[in-house]
Amino acid sequence: MGQIEEARKGNITPEARAVADAEGIRPESVAEGVAAGTIVIPKNSCRDGVAVCGIGRGLRTKVNANIGTSAELADLELELRKVKAAEEAGADTVMDLSTGGDIAAIRKRVIASTVLPVGTVPIYQAAIGAARLKKGIRSMTADEIFEAIEDHARDGVDYVTLHCGVTREALGKLEKEGRVLDIVSRGGAFLAVWMVANERENPLYSDYGRVLEICKRYDLTVSLGDGLRPGCLADATDRAQIQELVTLGELASAALGEGVQAMIEGPGHVPINEIEENVRIEKDLCHGAPFYVLGPIVTDIAPGYDHLSSAIGGAIAASCGADFLCYVTASEHLRLPDERDVREGVIVTRIAAHAADIAKGIARSGERDLRISLARKAGDFDEQMRLAIDPGRARSIRESSRPSAGDICTMCGEYCSIKLLRERLQKGRDKAP
Amino acid sequence: MGQIEEARKGNITPEARAVADAEGIRPESVAEGVAAGTIVIPKNSCRDGVAVCGIGRGLRTKVNANIGTSAELADLELELRKVKAAEEAGADTVMDLSTGGDIAAIRKRVIASTVLPVGTVPIYQAAIGAARLKKGIRSMTADEIFEAIEDHARDGVDYVTLHCGVTREALGKLEKEGRVLDIVSRGGAFLAVWMVANERENPLYSDYGRVLEICKRYDLTVSLGDGLRPGCLADATDRAQIQELVTLGELASAALGEGVQAMIEGPGHVPINEIEENVRIEKDLCHGAPFYVLGPIVTDIAPGYDHLSSAIGGAIAASCGADFLCYVTASEHLRLPDERDVREGVIVTRIAAHAADIAKGIARSGERDLRISLARKAGDFDEQMRLAIDPGRARSIRESSRPSAGDICTMCGEYCSIKLLRERLQKGRDKAP
Repeated sequence: MGQIEEARKGNITPEARAVADAEGIRPESVAEGVAAGTIVIPKNSCRDGVAVCGIGRGLRTKVNANIGTSAELADLELELRKVKAAEEAGADTVMDLSTGGDIAAIRKRVIASTVLPVGTVPIYQAAIGAARLKKGIRSMTADEIFEAIEDHARDGVDYVTLHCGVTREALGKLEKEGRVLDIVSRGGAFLAVWMVANERENPLYSDYGRVLEICKRYDLTVSLGDGLRPGCLADATDRAQIQELVTLGELASAALGEGVQAMIEGPGHVPINEIEENVRIEKDLCHGAPFYVLGPIVTDIAPGYDHLSSAIGGAIAASCGADFLCYVTASEHLRLPDERDVREGVIVTRIAAHAADIAKGIARSGERDLRISLARKAGDFDEQMRLAIDPGRARSIRESSRPSAGDICTMCGEYCSIKLLRERLQKGRDKAP
Repeated sequence: MGQIEEARKGNITPEARAVADAEGIRPESVAEGVAAGTIVIPKNSCRDGVAVCGIGRGLRTKVNANIGTSAELADLELELRKVKAAEEAGADTVMDLSTGGDIAAIRKRVIASTVLPVGTVPIYQAAIGAARLKKGIRSMTADEIFEAIEDHARDGVDYVTLHCGVTREALGKLEKEGRVLDIVSRGGAFLAVWMVANERENPLYSDYGRVLEICKRYDLTVSLGDGLRPGCLADATDRAQIQELVTLGELASAALGEGVQAMIEGPGHVPINEIEENVRIEKDLCHGAPFYVLGPIVTDIAPGYDHLSSAIGGAIAASCGADFLCYVTASEHLRLPDERDVREGVIVTRIAAHAADIAKGIARSGERDLRISLARKAGDFDEQMRLAIDPGRARSIRESSRPSAGDICTMCGEYCSIKLLRERLQKGRDKAP
C-alpha cells in the first residue's frame, strides 16, 4: 500500500513518522496532509535507506538540486561529485536530468550514490533513445514513454516529472496567443515536437490511467510538469500556461483518487508582481497540491547571476505558499553547471527557503536566527560561524581580514555599535539613579 | 536657490532635466515630484560635474554602494579602488562611511575621484574626533556635530545621513519593550551613548532648525537616518523603530517646508512578511518621501551571503515602493568589504532593483528583458552576452565550457528546447495543411 492509502486508513507509516519528527509536528498532521493531497512523501517503495522528506502545506520549504549530463558534457564522475556537493550543501532532493551518455546507467549510479530522494524525467530517455536510434524524436512511440517511466520506477526513482498537461488544446492556446519563447521545457518541447509531427494527443494525457497504474505499483510520486512554463518575463502567466495548470489540477485530483501522490510544477520566469497570483492560482486550481517551482527567475537579463535572480523569486513564491524550490545555478542559460555552481545554488536556495519559512510561520523556523543574533550581541564570532548557513564560507571571509580583537570585525572595529552599546550604554545605565 | 524652491516656482533646473532625460519622463513630472517631496536630487550646489540622479516615486530604483575605512583597516587607495569598482559596476551613488585614518582627507579624495553623488555620515567625524582627542564619545559637543555637517557640505557632499529621530522618547520605547540587539546603527549608537551619558536630547532633533539651515545653504539633501533600525529579525517593526519613523515623518515635512530635500532611511533586518508594511507605513507617515532601505536582510543566518539575503529583501521592498537600495556585501557582519565584494554587491543589488522596477511598472524597464529573450530565441549568444547585466561574467562562464555549436550551450546541447522548437515545430507547421 502507498502513503495515501495508509494515511486514509489512519495508519502512520514510518515515512510519515520520519517527516513528523524532522518537522517537529504531529505524525497525524502529516498523514492527514498526505490523505488530502496537500503533502507528498516522495519515496519509491522499492528503495530503501532514503532520507525521507515531506513536501507540502505546513512543512519546511524543501530544496531540489538538478544534476545530470548533456550530450555536450557526459561525465559520470562529475555528476556523482555534483550529487555529493548537493547533499553536503543541504539539498533535500536531487533530480537526475541526464541527457548525455548512458542515461540508464547514470541514473542507477546516481540513485546508488545518495540517500536523498531522487527525481527524474523519463521522457528524456524515451525521446533521446528515439532520436539516437531511429529517425528522430517523432519516431518515439507511446509505449516507449510508458516503458521509460516503468524503467525509472524499477530503478528506485522516488518521483518523476511527467508533462501530462502539454495537450493539443494547450498548444493551440499557445499558438493563438503567441509567445516570445514558445517552449523552454525540454520535456515539453520533446512532446510538442512529437505531437505536432504525428498529429496526435500527448500519450501522458490521453493514457493517463496507465501513468497512474505504474506510479501506484511503486508508490512513485508524480510531479506534474509544466511543459508550457514561460521562458521569459514577457510570456509569464499567459493562457497556455494557465490552460496547462487547469489540466494539471484535474490530473492531480485524478491521481489522488487513485492513491497516487502528486505535486505540481510551476514557472519559470515570472516578474515579481505576478508571483503571488501564480502561487494562489495553483493552490486553488490544484486543491492545495504541493507546488514545486523552478526559480522563478525574476529578470531575464542576469545570466551569470540566475541563482540569485531565482532566489529572489523563490523566496517570494515560498512566502506565498510554494512548497518546494528547484534551485537554479549561476550557469543557467550559459553551460552545464559544475560542482561549485551546485554547491552555491543549493545554499542560496536554502537561504530563500529559510527566509520564506519564517515569513509563512513554519514552526521553529526563526530559532536559529535568534541564536545567531544573541551570539552577535555577545560578540561571540565562533558561535556566529557555527550557526551560519555556510560556516566554512563565513569563517574564511572573516579570517581573510583579521581584527585586532576577537569580539569585533574589521568593518567597524572599535566603533562596532553592538560593542559600544554593550559597554557604554550599560555604563550610562549603571550611572543612572 | 535649491531644487525645491526652483521646482515650486515652476522652473526646470538643469538637474531636473537631466533626471527626466535619464528616466525618459517629462521634466515637469520630476519638478512636481521635487516640489512635493516625493523625489530628491542629491547634488550639493558647490559641486560640479556630478552624474545627477533622481530618487523617488515614478523613477527607476537607485542603488548605493557604501565604501570607507575603519580603524582596523584604513587604506585610502583601497577605498578609491572600491569607489571605482562601484562606479564601473553601475552604482548610482556612493557613501563614504570612513571611520579610520584621516576621515576628512579621505572624504575629499573620494569626492574628487568620482562623478557619482556622494553621501556621508557626519556624526562619525564628530564622535570619532571626540573619541580620539578627548575623553570618549560622551565628550563630543553639539557644536562639533553641526560643524561636521558644515565641513561635509563645504567639501561638496551631496547627501548626509543624520540620525535626527534618535530621541529620548524613542530610546525610552526601546528600553521599555526590550530588544535582542539594541542599536546596530553606528550613528545611532554614537548618539545614544552620548545622550545617555550626558542625559541630554539628541542635538540633531532639538536643534533641527540648525540642521536645515546648513543643508539649505548647500542644497544638501538630508537622509533621515534610522538609528534605531532593527539589527535582527526578532527586533523588526518594533515600537522604537516605528516611533523613530513617526518622528522622521515630522522632520521630513519640516525639511520640505524649509525647502530642504529629504529622504528616509529604513531597515535593516526584516522578515519577508513584514517588508510590505514597512514600506507602506513609511510612505504614509512621511507623506511619500523617498524611502532608502538598507537591505533589508531577510534572515540573520547567512553571513557570507548577506548580499543575496539583502537582494531578496531589496527586491521585495522596491517592488512595494522603496526608491533607493543600499547594497549589502557578502562581507557584512564579517569584515571590511574588498573591491570584489563591492562589485558583486552592486550587481546583485542592481538585479534586485531592476526586477522591482519591472514589478512596479517603471517605464521601459522590461525592454532589455525582452531583447535578451529574443536573442535567446534566435540562439544568438553574442547578443545575449551583450545584453547581460554583467557581460564579462556571463561570457566567462559560457567560455569555460565550450559547446559544439554556436547556438547552444553545454547544458542541453542539441536537445535545447528553444532550438528544437525553432527547427522542428516549424517543420511541423510547414507540413500542416
